[in-house]
Amino acid sequence: MAKQQIKGVIPPMITPFREDGAVDYDSHIANMERWNADKLAGYLVLGSNSEAAYLSEDEKIKMMELTVKHAKKERLVLAGTGMESALETIRLTNKAAELGVNGALVLTPFYYGDKMNDEALIKYFTHVADRADIPVLIYNVPKYTHINISANAVKVLSQHPNILGMKDSTGNIPQLVSFLAVIAEGFNLMVGTVSAWFPALTLGIKGGIFALANCAPNECAQVQEMFEAGDLDSARETYMRIFPVNTAVTATYGVAGLKHAADLRGYSGGYVRNPLLPLKDIEKDAIKTIMQTAKLI
Amino acid sequence: MAKQQIKGVIPPMITPFREDGAVDYDSHIANMERWNADKLAGYLVLGSNSEAAYLSEDEKIKMMELTVKHAKKERLVLAGTGMESALETIRLTNKAAELGVNGALVLTPFYYGDKMNDEALIKYFTHVADRADIPVLIYNVPKYTHINISANAVKVLSQHPNILGMKDSTGNIPQLVSFLAVIAEGFNLMVGTVSAWFPALTLGIKGGIFALANCAPNECAQVQEMFEAGDLDSARETYMRIFPVNTAVTATYGVAGLKHAADLRGYSGGYVRNPLLPLKDIEKDAIKTIMQTAKLI
Amino acid sequence: MAKQQIKGVIPPMITPFREDGAVDYDSHIANMERWNADKLAGYLVLGSNSEAAYLSEDEKIKMMELTVKHAKKERLVLAGTGMESALETIRLTNKAAELGVNGALVLTPFYYGDKMNDEALIKYFTHVADRADIPVLIYNVPKYTHINISANAVKVLSQHPNILGMKDSTGNIPQLVSFLAVIAEGFNLMVGTVSAWFPALTLGIKGGIFALANCAPNECAQVQEMFEAGDLDSARETYMRIFPVNTAVTATYGVAGLKHAADLRGYSGGYVRNPLLPLKDIEKDAIKTIMQTAKLI
Amino acid sequence: MAKQQIKGVIPPMITPFREDGAVDYDSHIANMERWNADKLAGYLVLGSNSEAAYLSEDEKIKMMELTVKHAKKERLVLAGTGMESALETIRLTNKAAELGVNGALVLTPFYYGDKMNDEALIKYFTHVADRADIPVLIYNVPKYTHINISANAVKVLSQHPNILGMKDSTGNIPQLVSFLAVIAEGFNLMVGTVSAWFPALTLGIKGGIFALANCAPNECAQVQEMFEAGDLDSARETYMRIFPVNTAVTATYGVAGLKHAADLRGYSGGYVRNPLLPLKDIEKDAIKTIMQTAKLI
Repeated sequence: MAKQQIKGVIPPMITPFREDGAVDYDSHIANMERWNADKLAGYLVLGSNSEAAYLSEDEKIKMMELTVKHAKKERLVLAGTGMESALETIRLTNKAAELGVNGALVLTPFYYGDKMNDEALIKYFTHVADRADIPVLIYNVPKYTHINISANAVKVLSQHPNILGMKDSTGNIPQLVSFLAVIAEGFNLMVGTVSAWFPALTLGIKGGIFALANCAPNECAQVQEMFEAGDLDSARETYMRIFPVNTAVTATYGVAGLKHAADLRGYSGGYVRNPLLPLKDIEKDAIKTIMQTAKLI
Repeated sequence: MAKQQIKGVIPPMITPFREDGAVDYDSHIANMERWNADKLAGYLVLGSNSEAAYLSEDEKIKMMELTVKHAKKERLVLAGTGMESALETIRLTNKAAELGVNGALVLTPFYYGDKMNDEALIKYFTHVADRADIPVLIYNVPKYTHINISANAVKVLSQHPNILGMKDSTGNIPQLVSFLAVIAEGFNLMVGTVSAWFPALTLGIKGGIFALANCAPNECAQVQEMFEAGDLDSARETYMRIFPVNTAVTATYGVAGLKHAADLRGYSGGYVRNPLLPLKDIEKDAIKTIMQTAKLI
Repeated sequence: MAKQQIKGVIPPMITPFREDGAVDYDSHIANMERWNADKLAGYLVLGSNSEAAYLSEDEKIKMMELTVKHAKKERLVLAGTGMESALETIRLTNKAAELGVNGALVLTPFYYGDKMNDEALIKYFTHVADRADIPVLIYNVPKYTHINISANAVKVLSQHPNILGMKDSTGNIPQLVSFLAVIAEGFNLMVGTVSAWFPALTLGIKGGIFALANCAPNECAQVQEMFEAGDLDSARETYMRIFPVNTAVTATYGVAGLKHAADLRGYSGGYVRNPLLPLKDIEKDAIKTIMQTAKLI
Repeated sequence: MAKQQIKGVIPPMITPFREDGAVDYDSHIANMERWNADKLAGYLVLGSNSEAAYLSEDEKIKMMELTVKHAKKERLVLAGTGMESALETIRLTNKAAELGVNGALVLTPFYYGDKMNDEALIKYFTHVADRADIPVLIYNVPKYTHINISANAVKVLSQHPNILGMKDSTGNIPQLVSFLAVIAEGFNLMVGTVSAWFPALTLGIKGGIFALANCAPNECAQVQEMFEAGDLDSARETYMRIFPVNTAVTATYGVAGLKHAADLRGYSGGYVRNPLLPLKDIEKDAIKTIMQTAKLI
């Protein structure tokens, strides 16, 4: 059976917290209502930019329920369900399936990183995908995991009928090419950072999961629209215009920066959880300037 | 109030699993009964060598209960209760306190590693220690976290009345010296690998938490006994004799290797959980040879 | 005065050695005669793929002389003249100028790498460019130097009238974008690996200095020709076809692999110098297969 | 024939430069005259702290000549003669031999670092040692080379009759233990940083080559004297007292810091060469304070 194609832009949704650290579920719903009106292909709940690492299981479940409930019809709902062990990953993935989530984004396990060779990763993802009630996508994000999956492992795993695709957050274009050269037909290779979006499109990549799509969803989508309309110059210009904002809300200021940028564009960013630090005023000013330069505010 | 001194050797206890992946609690109890007869100062449950990253919360609680129940009187019981967020760490730490655990070993949070600067770590550990019902020890293990706490952060945190000490697993002796030079009196700086044990003793370090203490507890303890008796040559010789076994059961073969070495010495190692791979026969043979050379079997 | 534009493909020419380690100058001349008939924009002598680090000063001078002498008229001749100190770099650069070399590719100094911050690199390149009798290009190759120049330093240096451009060998497309966003008009940002060639073209990059251009110069040039003719599909296909060969002759097998690939296509590769190891037969076979798959032989 | 034992402390001598960048040979001679009165076992000319990477061949030769001429009788004179290629290393080593140098400290080649595996390093050092007219010492300094020689390679090379020993500058005590466990009898394993000096002594190491010995030679020597006299407490205290100065003149402020510290103790430090930056006043003040705290001034 052919795998479903994922095309378009998906935000790894921020999780708004109140000042006391509690999840602000109402703000999440409000964000989703706005995003439903934006040019998005779907949603990712419990991603890295969702501070999923900081959520309890109860909070994770509630976030998945609300996301499924409030997502616009026909839009894909993905959830980050990767835990360190196959056992726990399968359990959370199948919980997500019960809640109506469409696909599971599963992080490469990484705690015992020096042991996560090809053999271990192939065995792990195969074991999980064999037992998952929904399709699985591999999540490769060396910035956080210090693991970088090999083309060889991707080649093998792309052939699994229940592994739908991969989000590669490296922004490493030659690496994407090395993956494109070996993946099975129908495997959705997605780019995980807007910093590589336009070049990825020129290589034939169809989908992206972008932190920046939290606060600039339509601009991210326009890059693809323009590219597909054959207007490379506009696509590249839009990409280069939003590029510095992406750097600010990822590498430089991280999730706290992303939440502030979301606030500035009328979404509800909210607080980050300890141990992440809130932004200092000077950092907020810097983000504002960068967004003004990019004509986002 | 003076901080309690931690002196001697503590094993970060392996968690035996059955072939089907279930925790083998009986084997854990059997191991503890043997360790109770060994020269140990206490126990660490839910450490890195316990595959704590692979345990569910229920399993963690049961492991803590059993450890508290079966530990020899007067021996210290520590538990690894570090989660990524302050909220979750406090919750699990205070659960451990309720269960009778004496101290909490708290991992440096690391998922958003590029944001875990001195300010973030100082704020996090202070926040946790302020709210923990038992004393807290910092757990610094860059091999797994890719975070290495600075001497400056250690200096500040060592002054907190509820931060009892630190386990530094780097084996980096110059780093230990830089910590010794700045820590407050009474702060227990412990070494987290036998590979640095004898040199650490010569610097005045009193305690260690060693993977190798799972399978060679008395040999680890003897290095300290000999050193304190003024017999440097015997201490160094014993240290150098067991050193290659330590390399095998940590760097080379990891937890699976440690479990096999435990089996070879009459403890119950059991299986590892997926995604860790079981040892191949050739790896088992290599460990056996290394242990024979070290006169451990 | 406007800076000269560099457009097209330039090989960092291999230096053929005899079995006894002596430079085989005749083979270099023979290679150049063939390359003169290929679609190349110029030549780089004394680059990383030239094993310049292994050449004596006399050998460097002779290689520059021969390259200038045998280069096809109108083609650019660049030479790698970067040494660790400004003093030595200036001396060798001006020697190159005397010999008729057109531009100097100057490596970021790297021995005291932890001290090579923006301030040091800006001061160094400014000092060198002020005193160089020919234009200077910055050579950024973290794979070998473990230094990665910042966008901020590139911004400042791109404004220097005697700094003509930069070769960035990272293949890091988002980094190229961050450079493109800040460089002064007329600054030649060149890509230093074929693994990023097609995506770089889509971003407006005009020139490349490629190891692979030693053995597949026309295929490298065709990617650009097709792209400029508006045939993106052919450009991408050609790029993806030669991509695995590039991986083989750089990352996997290094200079020895590149020399063997050159041999297979009728150039004279020759031996590598100690401490580089010659290829084993199984490695030669692997390269042959990869080149056959890419239809290069 | 037994290898000569190297015991005691050796400074990797700074090279004083004038403000215009010229080598200040007179200051070098003046420094040597003072060091001749200090408790040193010998001298290393052309080491990392000598800015050897910044010297021309003529300057290297003159520095070797002057060092041989002015060294106190019976003291060992070592020279850093490692170049990237075996050919060049042998040439410079045998030039050093002609000039009366007693031993050659040969850096692990590192430019093509990803290819410098055990096989390449064993072949290289064997080839060099076979052809060197004076004994060779391996110089392992990953901080600068990003190469870390393996215990396996050290084991093999330690058996070569013309490889006298090794300077390991990592300060990694467990690594030193792994080397001690495998080296042939008589091989001089020397520690290359004072940050590991006292612990290294407790392991049986007899010699050290220390940046700090440029400005605090007698304090470095006293650690060993006290240790050998059985006074561990004094040895450790002296070691811990000078430890922060070592950090300042290596990791924090580098060669420029070391030269300033030398100035403060009456030696002639002089300027550094471009691209190294001169110290700022605030950095000079910091070094002064650190040295005062250590009672060195």
